Amino acid sequence: MSGDSILLDYGSGGMASQRLIQECFFRHFENPILARMDDAARLEMRSPLAMSTDSYTVTPLFFPGGSIGTLAVHGTVNDVAMLGARPRYMSCAFIIEEGLPMDTLERVVADMGQCAREAGILIVTGDTKVVPKGACDKLFITTTGIGELIIPDGPSGHKAHPGDAILISGSMGDHGLTIMAQREELTFDTAIRSDSAPLNHMIEALMCKLTSVHVLRDPTRGGLATTLNEIAHQSDVVIEIEEEHIPVHDAVKNTCSFLGLDPLYLANEGKCLCIVPEQEAEAALHIMRATPQGHEAVRIGTVLAAEGKTKAGQVILKTPIGGKRLLGMLEGDQLPRIC
Amino acid sequence: MSGDSILLDYGSGGMASQRLIQECFFRHFENPILARMDDAARLEMRSPLAMSTDSYTVTPLFFPGGSIGTLAVHGTVNDVAMLGARPRYMSCAFIIEEGLPMDTLERVVADMGQCAREAGILIVTGDTKVVPKGACDKLFITTTGIGELIIPDGPSGHKAHPGDAILISGSMGDHGLTIMAQREELTFDTAIRSDSAPLNHMIEALMCKLTSVHVLRDPTRGGLATTLNEIAHQSDVVIEIEEEHIPVHDAVKNTCSFLGLDPLYLANEGKCLCIVPEQEAEAALHIMRATPQGHEAVRIGTVLAAEGKTKAGQVILKTPIGGKRLLGMLEGDQLPRIC
Repeated sequence: MSGDSILLDYGSGGMASQRLIQECFFRHFENPILARMDDAARLEMRSPLAMSTDSYTVTPLFFPGGSIGTLAVHGTVNDVAMLGARPRYMSCAFIIEEGLPMDTLERVVADMGQCAREAGILIVTGDTKVVPKGACDKLFITTTGIGELIIPDGPSGHKAHPGDAILISGSMGDHGLTIMAQREELTFDTAIRSDSAPLNHMIEALMCKLTSVHVLRDPTRGGLATTLNEIAHQSDVVIEIEEEHIPVHDAVKNTCSFLGLDPLYLANEGKCLCIVPEQEAEAALHIMRATPQGHEAVRIGTVLAAEGKTKAGQVILKTPIGGKRLLGMLEGDQLPRIC
Repeated sequence: MSGDSILLDYGSGGMASQRLIQECFFRHFENPILARMDDAARLEMRSPLAMSTDSYTVTPLFFPGGSIGTLAVHGTVNDVAMLGARPRYMSCAFIIEEGLPMDTLERVVADMGQCAREAGILIVTGDTKVVPKGACDKLFITTTGIGELIIPDGPSGHKAHPGDAILISGSMGDHGLTIMAQREELTFDTAIRSDSAPLNHMIEALMCKLTSVHVLRDPTRGGLATTLNEIAHQSDVVIEIEEEHIPVHDAVKNTCSFLGLDPLYLANEGKCLCIVPEQEAEAALHIMRATPQGHEAVRIGTVLAAEGKTKAGQVILKTPIGGKRLLGMLEGDQLPRIC
């Protein structure tokens, strides 16, 4: 099929759909559950479960460090993992614009297959719709993941306690800035690459080795600032972070400064926030730093109770010169179609 | 928010997204699991599970008998049920074109909420992406459902045995023809309506009351003819059906004849094929006819072994005057964006 373009027929549910499924999807996602081709996949799992879904509409489809395919697997694997779960199975649904080159679809599907193998998740069921030219922009993918909770009552955005340490697994802003740079056709001296990566193996190590993990959350759309605000609201606490401890690569820092962007509001696709009791902080950093996804892990702040002028739900940023300012949620959209 | 249009901000992951989630989705999908707002939903379920996903890109968004919202719930509920499972939880992901009227989205979401309640499934997690004007046509929805298998080794497309009876729960072609009529702005004397409906309660009755159900399958895209071909291939059998026993409403029959369409290739969204051992056929029809979705249920044919000139994988249509012809799979696409 290589060399062809996607035709409307490929989404018809008839012969052409069957060929696309057999020759493209099955080849890259190969596993016996998918190969049964029933209306639904039959799965063996331990309850309780975590379930998460995301649609991916990123443009361009390919960028330094990843593609819509790597995001579609990593994003959903990571969301499932953030509940303290071991991702096991994934569905994927493609909406394809008529005329998309077959080679483009195949590159994306190959990326998904490879990322799924690395994350240890099986793609077990799917769907393909082809819409007429102009009815969508090239390719959208929706993935849904399910996983088994490693402990019955795992981490949640509601569990940040005053006194807890706030850790981050690595640098902020790389994904968001990479997409923006591609979109604006900016060229830089230094390479900026998306951080698209699976976090589930690191999360599993944290869940299995630590006594307690209160919150796990990946700061994707809206960036670190928005994610911290969500947690402060859900847990009814104040969050204080120190600006100089937040890792931001020099190339990202300089480009953000040039473009007037704030890296704390840019999306990340391979990083996580981890909030643990103070006495677990060193052990958690040690575990994270031993993994490829967490080698830059650092502590960036502390969870506080509301008192005096601070109110529950607030996020306070301490600047290097000793000032404090409120860090709000993202208002408006810095950049559509980032993921 | 009513009266507004959807802005890019609503998909940003920031404040505007939160408002959309709270004021629209939570209001119609209300349940405590969704309300936790973690990255993933935490679910209690009995294994083994069934999992299925579909993207919905139907145009127009609203049509007699349903909407993209009813299809997004019914389609996925039905696919999960076809594995002999009780659908329990569903995710939904929206891709919305900037500028879509808020009232339109709200009507769709209200339809989804009502259909989910009728089917007894909870919408527990979701995602919203807004893409710039022109990057998608109004609204696409992807739902993923998971359910508990009612018996450990349930129906499958691989289980049709020679001698089995082939039953259908009702008339063919209503959904496909309704969409085509809307699209072409045809008007008819008689009303043609989509059959969009949840089949899970009927399936549960079949699974619980019969000793054995070999195959369940809903003939959606590609219609009855394509679904029967899939089953004949998967089970390595011959399928013989009698044309005069296949229920097709007169209005559908007449319009198809006028337009040169074959109702056996048109999509259905609230019907199922049920293949059972001969001795279970009467009981199965009795159970189906006692439900609102199955009151027109009839037997349409028999599963045969390949012998003489017939080959495994073939579907044979017996015509009212005694002729026989091969019924192939759908080749090409009668109508894109049907569901």
